[in-house]
Amino acid sequence: MAEKTLISVEEISKHNNADDCWIVVDGKVWDITEFAPQHPGGGEIIWKHAGRDASTSYNSIHAPAVLPTNLDASKLKGSVDPGTITEEWAKPPPQKTPELKLHEKPGLETVINALDFERIAERTISKKTWAFYSSADTDCYTRDRNKEFFSRIWWRPRLLRDVHTVDTSSQILGHDVGLPLFVSPAAMARMVHPEGEKDIARGCIANRIPQGVSTNASFPIDEIIASVPKDAKHPFFFQLYVNKDRSKSEALLKHVRSLGVDTVFVTVDAPTPGKREADERVKADEGLSTPMSGAQAKNDKKGGGLGRVMGGYIAPDFTWDEFKWLRKHWDGKIVAKGVQCWQDAKMCADAGLDGVLLSNHGGRNLDCSPPAIMTLLECQLNCPTIFSQLEVFVDGGVRRGSDILKCMCLGATAVGMGRPFLYAVNYGQEGVEHFIEILKSELATAMALVGITDLSQCHPGLVSTLDVDHLVSRGEGHPYATGRRLGSVVSTVKARL
Amino acid sequence: MAEKTLISVEEISKHNNADDCWIVVDGKVWDITEFAPQHPGGGEIIWKHAGRDASTSYNSIHAPAVLPTNLDASKLKGSVDPGTITEEWAKPPPQKTPELKLHEKPGLETVINALDFERIAERTISKKTWAFYSSADTDCYTRDRNKEFFSRIWWRPRLLRDVHTVDTSSQILGHDVGLPLFVSPAAMARMVHPEGEKDIARGCIANRIPQGVSTNASFPIDEIIASVPKDAKHPFFFQLYVNKDRSKSEALLKHVRSLGVDTVFVTVDAPTPGKREADERVKADEGLSTPMSGAQAKNDKKGGGLGRVMGGYIAPDFTWDEFKWLRKHWDGKIVAKGVQCWQDAKMCADAGLDGVLLSNHGGRNLDCSPPAIMTLLECQLNCPTIFSQLEVFVDGGVRRGSDILKCMCLGATAVGMGRPFLYAVNYGQEGVEHFIEILKSELATAMALVGITDLSQCHPGLVSTLDVDHLVSRGEGHPYATGRRLGSVVSTVKARL
Amino acid sequence: MAEKTLISVEEISKHNNADDCWIVVDGKVWDITEFAPQHPGGGEIIWKHAGRDASTSYNSIHAPAVLPTNLDASKLKGSVDPGTITEEWAKPPPQKTPELKLHEKPGLETVINALDFERIAERTISKKTWAFYSSADTDCYTRDRNKEFFSRIWWRPRLLRDVHTVDTSSQILGHDVGLPLFVSPAAMARMVHPEGEKDIARGCIANRIPQGVSTNASFPIDEIIASVPKDAKHPFFFQLYVNKDRSKSEALLKHVRSLGVDTVFVTVDAPTPGKREADERVKADEGLSTPMSGAQAKNDKKGGGLGRVMGGYIAPDFTWDEFKWLRKHWDGKIVAKGVQCWQDAKMCADAGLDGVLLSNHGGRNLDCSPPAIMTLLECQLNCPTIFSQLEVFVDGGVRRGSDILKCMCLGATAVGMGRPFLYAVNYGQEGVEHFIEILKSELATAMALVGITDLSQCHPGLVSTLDVDHLVSRGEGHPYATGRRLGSVVSTVKARL
Amino acid sequence: MAEKTLISVEEISKHNNADDCWIVVDGKVWDITEFAPQHPGGGEIIWKHAGRDASTSYNSIHAPAVLPTNLDASKLKGSVDPGTITEEWAKPPPQKTPELKLHEKPGLETVINALDFERIAERTISKKTWAFYSSADTDCYTRDRNKEFFSRIWWRPRLLRDVHTVDTSSQILGHDVGLPLFVSPAAMARMVHPEGEKDIARGCIANRIPQGVSTNASFPIDEIIASVPKDAKHPFFFQLYVNKDRSKSEALLKHVRSLGVDTVFVTVDAPTPGKREADERVKADEGLSTPMSGAQAKNDKKGGGLGRVMGGYIAPDFTWDEFKWLRKHWDGKIVAKGVQCWQDAKMCADAGLDGVLLSNHGGRNLDCSPPAIMTLLECQLNCPTIFSQLEVFVDGGVRRGSDILKCMCLGATAVGMGRPFLYAVNYGQEGVEHFIEILKSELATAMALVGITDLSQCHPGLVSTLDVDHLVSRGEGHPYATGRRLGSVVSTVKARL
Repeated sequence: MAEKTLISVEEISKHNNADDCWIVVDGKVWDITEFAPQHPGGGEIIWKHAGRDASTSYNSIHAPAVLPTNLDASKLKGSVDPGTITEEWAKPPPQKTPELKLHEKPGLETVINALDFERIAERTISKKTWAFYSSADTDCYTRDRNKEFFSRIWWRPRLLRDVHTVDTSSQILGHDVGLPLFVSPAAMARMVHPEGEKDIARGCIANRIPQGVSTNASFPIDEIIASVPKDAKHPFFFQLYVNKDRSKSEALLKHVRSLGVDTVFVTVDAPTPGKREADERVKADEGLSTPMSGAQAKNDKKGGGLGRVMGGYIAPDFTWDEFKWLRKHWDGKIVAKGVQCWQDAKMCADAGLDGVLLSNHGGRNLDCSPPAIMTLLECQLNCPTIFSQLEVFVDGGVRRGSDILKCMCLGATAVGMGRPFLYAVNYGQEGVEHFIEILKSELATAMALVGITDLSQCHPGLVSTLDVDHLVSRGEGHPYATGRRLGSVVSTVKARL
Repeated sequence: MAEKTLISVEEISKHNNADDCWIVVDGKVWDITEFAPQHPGGGEIIWKHAGRDASTSYNSIHAPAVLPTNLDASKLKGSVDPGTITEEWAKPPPQKTPELKLHEKPGLETVINALDFERIAERTISKKTWAFYSSADTDCYTRDRNKEFFSRIWWRPRLLRDVHTVDTSSQILGHDVGLPLFVSPAAMARMVHPEGEKDIARGCIANRIPQGVSTNASFPIDEIIASVPKDAKHPFFFQLYVNKDRSKSEALLKHVRSLGVDTVFVTVDAPTPGKREADERVKADEGLSTPMSGAQAKNDKKGGGLGRVMGGYIAPDFTWDEFKWLRKHWDGKIVAKGVQCWQDAKMCADAGLDGVLLSNHGGRNLDCSPPAIMTLLECQLNCPTIFSQLEVFVDGGVRRGSDILKCMCLGATAVGMGRPFLYAVNYGQEGVEHFIEILKSELATAMALVGITDLSQCHPGLVSTLDVDHLVSRGEGHPYATGRRLGSVVSTVKARL
Repeated sequence: MAEKTLISVEEISKHNNADDCWIVVDGKVWDITEFAPQHPGGGEIIWKHAGRDASTSYNSIHAPAVLPTNLDASKLKGSVDPGTITEEWAKPPPQKTPELKLHEKPGLETVINALDFERIAERTISKKTWAFYSSADTDCYTRDRNKEFFSRIWWRPRLLRDVHTVDTSSQILGHDVGLPLFVSPAAMARMVHPEGEKDIARGCIANRIPQGVSTNASFPIDEIIASVPKDAKHPFFFQLYVNKDRSKSEALLKHVRSLGVDTVFVTVDAPTPGKREADERVKADEGLSTPMSGAQAKNDKKGGGLGRVMGGYIAPDFTWDEFKWLRKHWDGKIVAKGVQCWQDAKMCADAGLDGVLLSNHGGRNLDCSPPAIMTLLECQLNCPTIFSQLEVFVDGGVRRGSDILKCMCLGATAVGMGRPFLYAVNYGQEGVEHFIEILKSELATAMALVGITDLSQCHPGLVSTLDVDHLVSRGEGHPYATGRRLGSVVSTVKARL
Repeated sequence: MAEKTLISVEEISKHNNADDCWIVVDGKVWDITEFAPQHPGGGEIIWKHAGRDASTSYNSIHAPAVLPTNLDASKLKGSVDPGTITEEWAKPPPQKTPELKLHEKPGLETVINALDFERIAERTISKKTWAFYSSADTDCYTRDRNKEFFSRIWWRPRLLRDVHTVDTSSQILGHDVGLPLFVSPAAMARMVHPEGEKDIARGCIANRIPQGVSTNASFPIDEIIASVPKDAKHPFFFQLYVNKDRSKSEALLKHVRSLGVDTVFVTVDAPTPGKREADERVKADEGLSTPMSGAQAKNDKKGGGLGRVMGGYIAPDFTWDEFKWLRKHWDGKIVAKGVQCWQDAKMCADAGLDGVLLSNHGGRNLDCSPPAIMTLLECQLNCPTIFSQLEVFVDGGVRRGSDILKCMCLGATAVGMGRPFLYAVNYGQEGVEHFIEILKSELATAMALVGITDLSQCHPGLVSTLDVDHLVSRGEGHPYATGRRLGSVVSTVKARL
């Protein structure tokens, strides 16, 4: 029979394409040209082996009898002549793994997590934009710890719950949201994409993700709001840097309020800018400006730090007392952004604010300030009552849906993300949508796997914080609170609380 | 005498083979052609130095007098002419260290531990198979911690015991086993070897290692069982993913039971699949299918994740109550696979199960879930009575016989290994046998060195867990269990326990 | 219109310089030669794109309408002929990133922190100088921990304080200083710069930074003092290595006092030199000498260690009792330099000294001695009263203004830096000035961001030491203080305290 | 004058050697041929700059006036013609840094610590010898932790003691020693040097370092003892592996005792050999044998592990009871080698032994067994009285004189080192002497710097063990000592104690 016909690999090699496709399986040579297009697993996998030995691939999938059963006997052309096998011929088929070129973005469908977006941004956006977005204060300990500390919180999954339907929806400051996530305000999104904050807005609609718009946005907030349909349910929050000239802030607030925005996030952790050295080292494009603050980029003898130079208008003297002033000029909700210890969080609650964003500004302002997740634990331990007084938000280092869930289990109302949205809008609106879907899917998966179906079931018993508990500040006292200089100061400072 | 005859290295170099073999030792030139084949250390070591200076090798082994004593004086040809020595000639003989080519497996005799098998698999199996087997959820913290935590448990060896005879045998669910080890069920072993689960079965016979057969095995369990002689003592366990369509599970259980299988491991930690990103990134061969579940591989917009796509039939709504249903359709033993906190382990005991497998699914489902060895400690601390109610198994990260012994000392009945068996069956049945022998030998060595001779002597005083004790969850309470959202939830959840 | 004229990229490429500059924005070709010099962001950024597509840069900064608004319509030359676009042409413009050559120092304006100075020194100073300055005892654990431990102390920032005006000034031993910093005495600054200690002195004037002058300075202290104007307010401290021949120390002290120096730092941690292996391995230039000690470099069989060879005159038998001798020959202030446990710090206070410098000599003497910041904590815990008896200084590992602030919050009076000044004087006086300004600016920023405006407000509640608290020695007792040899020794040593 | 003569660098470059040597300093050209040989810093440093600009070197050492003062005016040849300076000429002189070739040992004078010896051995000894010496059990955690844990013990230096004279001498088992150090017995030193254990013996004489001779030594102990003068004071200890055939041990002990050896170290931690994988992977030279044990190397299917194959004679059933047998055949002192928990150490004391060597066999037997320094702490905490009953020794990971001192401060009588002596004897007797001098010098330095002058002053208050205290086992109880299997076992084992 054909089985006994010996065929040289030279001959077999000639039938190496979709129109004339022979493959070898377990020593037998088959003409599979007709069958390949109907292959349940697709023709591609067969054509890859055209003119070659496909045994390894075949056997990892099919039982031996599949080929003889599915093909007409006439398709068996013979057996490989063993004496003709060459090393070259016996190699596995070449892999097509196209190398990406610098600045070339891979297809969005290959991007499957926040880190992918970040790595792609690093390679494809301008050096200055990368420096401005990714940099943080001095040695970047806090920026890196923000991420690290999420990995140090463990799950305690509860099994055998019915998790057929998992619902990630929640509420933030009265707004229904598809997941407990908002865009932390970040400056100048247009540096990464021409549509900048506008495409972030468009990408947020589907899941009603609130978007925090920075005073330093690339576009006026009017334009950003105008970029989405009037009936889109996704809310905008306005982030305010209080201006040295308070009247300018008053005018801005009035204008923003007139646009229907109901919540302002007042940044409280940036009376002076941090030292973002990577940003300083790359020359700024002096044409760059931010319309709402009226700031202009420039290079000076300290370097090209956008954060530093363009934040020159920010008031360094805004204090707790001035919340009264703010209330006078803003009848919406107020959230303090950038709180970093339980004492200040409690002061926010006592001041009657609507929310507090525990945050270290992405590590951009003061290196060695604590990860916000640690401040959240600190609040739980020292002032648990604030959780019934205002909404507690967290940002910094969140990269996974499971990170969001950890915050929720520890009592947060919702979680903000800043840089990751900038890296996502590198792909425009579609990138932002894709990114939110990833997070939502990760969050739903984590919920199911810890055994809950909606976020009201979150509780701290689902996580273990044992690895970080010793780093949570407790109470007012300090073991080293003595000594010459210190005695009186502690009193002074306590008096100011 | 000959001793005074000066011979040039050019001349000596000519006698450089087994048939004409001169060597130099301490300046003297010997004709060692006749003696070499009778050399107690083998001729190879001598021929390696043929035509060269062998002094270094010789002196590291023999006393100076050995050569003159063993050789006839006529074999002394003379002394090296020092003036003729060249740098080239004085070099040590070339080492023959053959480089392995990609995809080429080294001889099984060179494989001496689990890590060897893993490294070889990484290099020789297909990219997709490697991605599917080795991947884990998202950032792979848990997968890596599974291994790491074994190294953080220290021995407290007890000396001067009579360890002449060490017995590694034990019992698992009523079966005698050669060592307290079973094959944790893992999917689609045929991707690594055509005989897949069948060769794992054959390799397990000698030591009667129970084999957990996955619902997602490459072969129907009938074929796997049929691949070993009827009288082989090694038991099969059946791993069940409960089907959304319970009637399919019922039929499958009935069929499996009819084959004589007496134990089912019900997976409880996978109501939804984890996000195995490495697996998603490599395109799946869509011809791939699993006979018992009837699942088929495919690529979709999320990627090519086999675990995700092929697990679509798994019920997300299987709960504690349904153990009654299971009992109705399975009159054998039942083990819950995938328990990750002491509360659930206790619920297994209370539900009257026969065993519980503390496991995080190799880190494949929920990243940052705890290493099973930590769950074991948690059970010892919080619900020690379960150890007299059911058998407690552990898997994840076990790579050494000493890891097995650590689990035993901390109260486990036996230990499962998953991926390592897949990497071993890369060498077929023989690989599996070799691998089990390695583990058994490592286990016996560790037993002897901590001072015990059979496994009933295991006790926790032989290990120190001091490096991880602070990470063991204690009791029900949680230091952060307060706050607005949390108060009521904790009650809710507690009510559900 | 011109808009419809298709222009090939070949043609566009010809207009590729400042004198004839075409750029492409969103497909339109503009002649921007005239406008470029008036561009608010500077012409450079435009010329970089001459003859190329500038859309990406343009759009990241400007709204679409800017070009048509600012340029005469005649400047629109046409549209790019898409068919002519080549891969080469579409590339971003080449970056000019001039590589530094070995030994070439970058411009001082690019140096923005202490680490920059260090890296530049490593690359540009002689191998021997680098070895001498950077080396430390044996395995360098302490040197590296000195830095690391600062990063393990976290901030607890307090927000919403008025930090409009931040004042970094302070006092050291009665001298007003611009910031609480002094130059820790270090040997032979001339190895890095011909003006050595003189330029350090000149660089310190502006901020009145006290300069500790080493007995092993490259210049006699007379010359160093003479190098600054008589009315400069910056004080000099004299560092004394007590000489085996006490009379030499007496003469030296007398001479130094006659120059108006009012404070002596007596080094107490170097009765014998540490083993600085990097220094030993590089041959010393035997012409090297130190004028005040009269020591001369040489190479011996142990190596070329400058610290070892040139310290041969230092007394190994200087004890607590001899402070009386010192008082007799020095009527100024006395500070003990190199104290490393609270017991010795307390003895300094009890001995009536004016200050104590907690220091491990930059890790240069005894590896595994504690970071000074840990000794500071130890003092706070065990002998808090000393802080009202004398001034407590800290050095070792300080690299940031925020490090200085951490020490202040934990009760230090001021902080010393040694190596960093040597790396700064690599740029002469200007380098030292620049360096101090950097630290001052970092300090002011950190003060504002933790919410204080002058250093009297420092208190330990602003930092968290939780990550290192377990490493702080407590009390006199020791958990292992028993056993044959130990019993009596403890008594002996206690008796000696 | 000559000063005004402009000389081209081309001309200057011609005078570029010791016989005709011009150098340039600060732009002036000097003929320094005559002076160079009389230069106090040596001629070398001058000749290095012959024909070049020596300003940098010169100014880092000398004041400007030195050259004009020391040289006759006629030696000033002129000034450099600036227009002729080339980049090439301006470079610093080429460094002569001869690269070492493989297998070539650097001069002993360049070897300054234990790590140097180790690195050199790795590069210069045979692959098999390196594998045999350096390998340890399985994953080598213990081997590496042995070193690491010394670095985790900190000093608490006490200052201002008179440390003019530091005495490192001590006593070990009645023998006066130059420092509290002995050679831990290690097998087959001849693999690294033809004189093996003989040269170790010779190298130990000067400091009277006791040498532990292994049963597996390359030479019979007679020959080793005979290799040193009869009146050498340095003692020999004999290490005994008890033979399965006790009569062979009896004969060996009798013979050893007849040679005057007064102490036997009985290895108790090796009833079965560990799995030294690096050793197994390299083929053994089957000619290798050990005269006292009569063992012969061979390769089998497990590999070429010398430790495993050649230890086949070692008794796995030697127990506590047999110390009576040992006492019968040995009237000298007895030390148990390899104790790893306080319970066994206490049993040694109760059994009336003269000493105990806390050791994990260099990590070679059971991976994850504790560093001996941790066992020492465990003994201090749980059975402090043993320190007055017997002498307590420590080995494993000791690499520095300061490591020795840490052990002494924590109560050890002396410290053993094994591998480091093998790496030192790579240089023969001289290497061993040099190595001991290094350790002695390091020890003396550390003593002076913590403030003691002889070893009787050691006490635990000089170290901080805070970083490892949580890893010290306390008491008998175990937090996880419950559960089905465990209950009875604990009783069983306790009964056996």
